[in-house]
Amino acid sequence: MLKIGILGATGYAGQNLVWLIKHHPNVKLSFVTSRSHKGTMYSDIYPNMKGSVDLECLDTSNIDASIIRDTDLVFLALPHKSSMGMVKKLLSINPGIKIIDLSADFRINDPKTYEAWYNAPHELVSLIDEFVFGLPEIYAEYVKKASYVANPGCYPTASILALAPAMKAGLIESDVIVDAKSGVSGAGRSAKTANLYCEVNESVKAYGLFNHRHTPEIAQELSLLGGKSSKVVFTPHLVPMNRGILSTCYGRLKENISSSEMTALYKDFYKGKPFVRVLDNGVFPETRNVRQSNFCDIGLAVDETSSSLIAVSAIDNLMKGAASQAVQNMNLMLGYDEKSGLDFTPMAP
Amino acid sequence: MLKIGILGATGYAGQNLVWLIKHHPNVKLSFVTSRSHKGTMYSDIYPNMKGSVDLECLDTSNIDASIIRDTDLVFLALPHKSSMGMVKKLLSINPGIKIIDLSADFRINDPKTYEAWYNAPHELVSLIDEFVFGLPEIYAEYVKKASYVANPGCYPTASILALAPAMKAGLIESDVIVDAKSGVSGAGRSAKTANLYCEVNESVKAYGLFNHRHTPEIAQELSLLGGKSSKVVFTPHLVPMNRGILSTCYGRLKENISSSEMTALYKDFYKGKPFVRVLDNGVFPETRNVRQSNFCDIGLAVDETSSSLIAVSAIDNLMKGAASQAVQNMNLMLGYDEKSGLDFTPMAP
Amino acid sequence: MLKIGILGATGYAGQNLVWLIKHHPNVKLSFVTSRSHKGTMYSDIYPNMKGSVDLECLDTSNIDASIIRDTDLVFLALPHKSSMGMVKKLLSINPGIKIIDLSADFRINDPKTYEAWYNAPHELVSLIDEFVFGLPEIYAEYVKKASYVANPGCYPTASILALAPAMKAGLIESDVIVDAKSGVSGAGRSAKTANLYCEVNESVKAYGLFNHRHTPEIAQELSLLGGKSSKVVFTPHLVPMNRGILSTCYGRLKENISSSEMTALYKDFYKGKPFVRVLDNGVFPETRNVRQSNFCDIGLAVDETSSSLIAVSAIDNLMKGAASQAVQNMNLMLGYDEKSGLDFTPMAP
Amino acid sequence: MLKIGILGATGYAGQNLVWLIKHHPNVKLSFVTSRSHKGTMYSDIYPNMKGSVDLECLDTSNIDASIIRDTDLVFLALPHKSSMGMVKKLLSINPGIKIIDLSADFRINDPKTYEAWYNAPHELVSLIDEFVFGLPEIYAEYVKKASYVANPGCYPTASILALAPAMKAGLIESDVIVDAKSGVSGAGRSAKTANLYCEVNESVKAYGLFNHRHTPEIAQELSLLGGKSSKVVFTPHLVPMNRGILSTCYGRLKENISSSEMTALYKDFYKGKPFVRVLDNGVFPETRNVRQSNFCDIGLAVDETSSSLIAVSAIDNLMKGAASQAVQNMNLMLGYDEKSGLDFTPMAP
Repeated sequence: MLKIGILGATGYAGQNLVWLIKHHPNVKLSFVTSRSHKGTMYSDIYPNMKGSVDLECLDTSNIDASIIRDTDLVFLALPHKSSMGMVKKLLSINPGIKIIDLSADFRINDPKTYEAWYNAPHELVSLIDEFVFGLPEIYAEYVKKASYVANPGCYPTASILALAPAMKAGLIESDVIVDAKSGVSGAGRSAKTANLYCEVNESVKAYGLFNHRHTPEIAQELSLLGGKSSKVVFTPHLVPMNRGILSTCYGRLKENISSSEMTALYKDFYKGKPFVRVLDNGVFPETRNVRQSNFCDIGLAVDETSSSLIAVSAIDNLMKGAASQAVQNMNLMLGYDEKSGLDFTPMAP
Repeated sequence: MLKIGILGATGYAGQNLVWLIKHHPNVKLSFVTSRSHKGTMYSDIYPNMKGSVDLECLDTSNIDASIIRDTDLVFLALPHKSSMGMVKKLLSINPGIKIIDLSADFRINDPKTYEAWYNAPHELVSLIDEFVFGLPEIYAEYVKKASYVANPGCYPTASILALAPAMKAGLIESDVIVDAKSGVSGAGRSAKTANLYCEVNESVKAYGLFNHRHTPEIAQELSLLGGKSSKVVFTPHLVPMNRGILSTCYGRLKENISSSEMTALYKDFYKGKPFVRVLDNGVFPETRNVRQSNFCDIGLAVDETSSSLIAVSAIDNLMKGAASQAVQNMNLMLGYDEKSGLDFTPMAP
Repeated sequence: MLKIGILGATGYAGQNLVWLIKHHPNVKLSFVTSRSHKGTMYSDIYPNMKGSVDLECLDTSNIDASIIRDTDLVFLALPHKSSMGMVKKLLSINPGIKIIDLSADFRINDPKTYEAWYNAPHELVSLIDEFVFGLPEIYAEYVKKASYVANPGCYPTASILALAPAMKAGLIESDVIVDAKSGVSGAGRSAKTANLYCEVNESVKAYGLFNHRHTPEIAQELSLLGGKSSKVVFTPHLVPMNRGILSTCYGRLKENISSSEMTALYKDFYKGKPFVRVLDNGVFPETRNVRQSNFCDIGLAVDETSSSLIAVSAIDNLMKGAASQAVQNMNLMLGYDEKSGLDFTPMAP
Repeated sequence: MLKIGILGATGYAGQNLVWLIKHHPNVKLSFVTSRSHKGTMYSDIYPNMKGSVDLECLDTSNIDASIIRDTDLVFLALPHKSSMGMVKKLLSINPGIKIIDLSADFRINDPKTYEAWYNAPHELVSLIDEFVFGLPEIYAEYVKKASYVANPGCYPTASILALAPAMKAGLIESDVIVDAKSGVSGAGRSAKTANLYCEVNESVKAYGLFNHRHTPEIAQELSLLGGKSSKVVFTPHLVPMNRGILSTCYGRLKENISSSEMTALYKDFYKGKPFVRVLDNGVFPETRNVRQSNFCDIGLAVDETSSSLIAVSAIDNLMKGAASQAVQNMNLMLGYDEKSGLDFTPMAP
């Protein structure tokens, strides 16, 4: 079995990756790393994994070269900006290693845009083009041939999937509004007062108005789909729940079309894509219905009076928005069934 | 002290009214009614009130005429459509009684619009004009002279307050998008599977797309403020928390203006309005900061690239969105200080 | 593959059974029934299962005899008292059918005790002895040979597993106190005001003091383990979370023993039992660490001053407390690996 | 109006004190201090207080002596061990200042017990006896005459009130078991991974088994009430909610007594105590019914077979368990009505 390493395994996305690789039928979890928990047993940090993952966390910034040479594919669940340097280092040790990067470092095609939004120059401009944007429902054919994949952000995954069919078909104007709601795990696992239980519970807020870093990522992909530069007004919100993103996307219709026609068009667009479930006309998604799965559920409403489309999508931010989508990309890269290790439905309640 | 009756006192809005009237320094709670709990002690339904409200619930549909004659003002926290009939009945018994109606029956100025959205003809068309739309930040002078007030809906309160200054000043186009998030108490206290803990917890969903009944109410008031017919795309969402509405409102700017200028304009608009807190430029509201209070917090962001305004407002749906706004109206109608019985801040956490 | 039917598939335990059987490698879900949703597509009730379980719910009280004859094993997730009648009916149609009953009807060995606690005479006294109490960590050898299994209650599963090693070893007095905390799914999916989101959220309460029906079940098993009649003071509590039971069990030590010796004894007792994880000395369970899994985590503390043992156990009430334990029993009855279809860890967060 | 200072005003208990003093009719909030937020406007830390508390946080360890001299009473909401030093300092500057200490430093009568549980020698042994244990339902007469009050811990308040009448009447054995469940605000507002939303939500755990520092405080008071040394087995639990403690207390009856007789005895014991509500026989408390109030609700069950009493109490841990009880003590010390500034009921939901 191919050997898999996970760098940054103790964040929430990292934990979900560990879970998925551990339960995957085709690959073997070879090592995990952590900056903050190096030397600790993984199941002491995540006791849910007790008896299942009995690995010690290696030091992310000091992995033995022999381990890297002996690894077939790594997932990087590292902070933005750290990933670039790690990619450089990994390839210098093992040029054949395959990489799936969950940070934003290789998602933005234009290095100037990257620099403008991430306040730092890109350190590996030459490699940007070799990283495929890992949204398999759009780019599966590219992912299959890729050695390096930039795994999309959580908000972009939900939002692009919600708008892609209409944008691609030229049914909506290029400028859109995306109003998204996320569970708290999206804020990560570091100890900040703002993410304490009592600060988050029983409240909703908007944040990052007009300046959230997922904005250029959504705009880039919608522009490519629509063939015209898209301006995206993107407003994320924090909602008191562990997991889930609901993305409510507003487009202006260019021509008259009914809700049921729009739904049919979406169903056609996503035919054969096992992880997108376009709901029947008049039915709308709930994040609980995709929790802990790789599904993206989409529901559509059209209003002819105001010439508006509302496309609502639901994903699990840590799964289709991060870890399970990364595994979906791995499956494609390694030639496995796209559903391998991901073929389970959410559980209620 | 004037005598107050509350009809429909066992719903969540009703409970908050009971609380507020019980703690109000100027008036006396005279009776409460309930359809579903007639004959039950109020504190057996709401044990939080034990020792404080020791009243038996009267039968809503069978209140003794002598009680109605002996009452100065009633709050109606009844379902839509029931209110109209009750108003007729109350006035036939006590023509001098003052009425604050929390249902939608007298909020919509145009009976045809009412009929279109509520699927029933209006039964008291002659009285619609005598009911003042009870949003005191806009209509205080009318409320002061009114005998009958139509208390606004929860979503309309949050959304109109968020957009009023910009719309009134002619700074934004008349068509707007309102994406609102509500806690679960907005769905009421009746026993429905969809509102069970396990069905709501750990999930977010949109509902009522393009057909929620608060749409015409928001459109009516924005049209009046802007002097031009407003089309409103309104999408409510259900969020796992007891209380609170966050309304994220999107407008298109007609002319260039900065966030700080917009904030200054809003602060000026709401000067002297004790219950609207316009936050400093760059600060945005959270529902927890207004919980269990009559405050509406508003934060503003302007993006000149996309010529967009985002106005975000937060209220407590049961308070400023229902019960405490009703008491604010009562204070104005009865000549009390507007803040009487409402002069408390939220408590954290 | 053997054919499995699930009666009462639309309750929460039923949904978890459907999920487990659907994902099980050795058996096939043949039919599901429901009293309240007969004729409805299963995935319309549980949209999380869309695309995965495309079965129509049969009418529980009117299943075609040919279907029953063609089924190898049924799970009954029916209300107490309904199960007895259903067992009678099923066996009259298909005497060879295997039955796993999730109700209490066949858990209590003594029909008089059953009658006293369930307020109804037992209708199938002759069969009680043929139903094995399906707690595999204690009774695996019996389950393997059984045709009929009475799946234990959720509280009893957690509480008996927490106390069994100490009781069996004669280390504690026979009378114990069990203070248990359950998530809300334990209250079922029927539409009751008391289980509405706003009635349960942000609150804790005790219920069923001295009269919860799981009391005699715990007492029966502890008596058998200890060889002496046990009196059990059992207090369940409702906690605002979907899933999970934490059972804090208090015993009086008969002799001096340290926490680490007690932990060692527990580890020894549960050696080879794949679903019980005895935590290291000084570590205590959290329900999130067993969520959506078949694990029971146990932590122990001993205080020599007060001669007390506290044994704390955590399970998922719908899984080890119902559905996954039922599948564990099925695996044993049908000769599969005990872990078949259950070999997954919880996911965080 | 007398002038009040609050030291340690930015923790959760501190915030509730600020709220209460701000809304109190008889006293004036003169200053607030903070170690971590010195120099910050209070309403920037707690935006819920915007427009209501416009004070800058002074530096706790560097308050101007003139301010201390000009203050009538201070609340200390400081960490254990810091309080002792602060008391010394305050009295050296203003010997007439009244002090209500919310830490544990002056709750334990025996300095050796304090040292054993808090791992530090007591620095002000001479003052311990001058601090009255501020549980007004037991010690009101002493509080009225006191200059210094040690405000009880949250768990002790709930647990002592639950057991006091039975213990005082000699109806139960001196050794008891207390199984308590607390909301997360009890863990404070400092940034720790263990208190992040995603680490606490959807889970329950026990902690501090046999070694929680509230144990000697409960034991001390029960011993005084019963006239005999009490051993207390105390197990706190963490529950996913902001506020509230439910304390389920188990005692062994010395003689036969019915639930209704026990309830009558409790009602008699707490007659004239406005903040304890003994519920009717067969009714049990829920923490939501006391949320954000100074009430303690108590429900009782007796089982004659096992000779057991279960007394269940509910308080708000930040209110009756900290801030509002401190204000109740202040009212008594300053000669105000005990209910002054506390005369409000909880609000539902």
